[in-house]
Amino acid sequence: MIILGIDPGYATLGYGIIHKIGNSFKPITYGVITTPPEFQPSDRLKKIYDSLMELIETHHPEVMAVEELFFNKNVNTAIQVGQARGVALLTGANAGISVFEYTPLQVKQGVVGYGRAAKNQVRQMVKVLLNLSELPGKADAADALAVAICHGHSVKMINQLGGY
Amino acid sequence: MIILGIDPGYATLGYGIIHKIGNSFKPITYGVITTPPEFQPSDRLKKIYDSLMELIETHHPEVMAVEELFFNKNVNTAIQVGQARGVALLTGANAGISVFEYTPLQVKQGVVGYGRAAKNQVRQMVKVLLNLSELPGKADAADALAVAICHGHSVKMINQLGGY
Repeated sequence: MIILGIDPGYATLGYGIIHKIGNSFKPITYGVITTPPEFQPSDRLKKIYDSLMELIETHHPEVMAVEELFFNKNVNTAIQVGQARGVALLTGANAGISVFEYTPLQVKQGVVGYGRAAKNQVRQMVKVLLNLSELPGKADAADALAVAICHGHSVKMINQLGGY
Repeated sequence: MIILGIDPGYATLGYGIIHKIGNSFKPITYGVITTPPEFQPSDRLKKIYDSLMELIETHHPEVMAVEELFFNKNVNTAIQVGQARGVALLTGANAGISVFEYTPLQVKQGVVGYGRAAKNQVRQMVKVLLNLSELPGKADAADALAVAICHGHSVKMINQLGGY
């Protein structure tokens, strides 16, 4: 199964595509989509949409896994990142692939097995599980790979439990 | 000029399409797009996208005017409405029409001429300016028509000032 993980963001959105074969994972591609601040907001969102659609058409993921957002401070930031996240969810729906959402707690549990793990522990685990020689240069890409791995582990559980 | 005004929302999104002829406005169509809570979030956003795209393909607006969001309370609501707003902005960009954004203050000034006007004053003014026999049943539709009128008045100002 090919899984597209997404760490939503407006200026920088992380993506990671992995191949789940049996109980192991292979990285296919990962990185970030950046949107220039001098663009109109609608054009920044269009860049996210077009870039994600191109990734989907190139690598044919069967599912998209998107991290949920939690903010307790800046509401304006929440709206902006919400806009980008909405476009990411829509891209999955328009491409006809299943879209799953995971909370940061679920991602930590799904990757490290421990909901209170530090961000860096999660990233180190991503490196180990994907046999990467080094961590992705962009933290958002590592976080997106973590969401994809989380979905891979959840699928395993769902299958063991006899579907849902 | 045909203007599509949007009052963004996740469960209910208001739209209003008006025709600006000289200094007067004629309503073309208005209403709300609702998204069923039992749908997946990605499918709720897809319903907004598809419905807006259908409105654009039917009525050929030249511009889209979208109200900006201000929240000072619930961040989770801000994220959800942000997701819907992002999809609305993207729809305009994907349809190749210009997208403008107006703050609630600008909408009030553009419709009533007074930034501290009450919501109901704005709606009554919408009824007068569009020669409606009664206010739209849905307040979100009236608010979307107000955003469209605001853009119509701004265009007038932009032209008087010699473009921008």
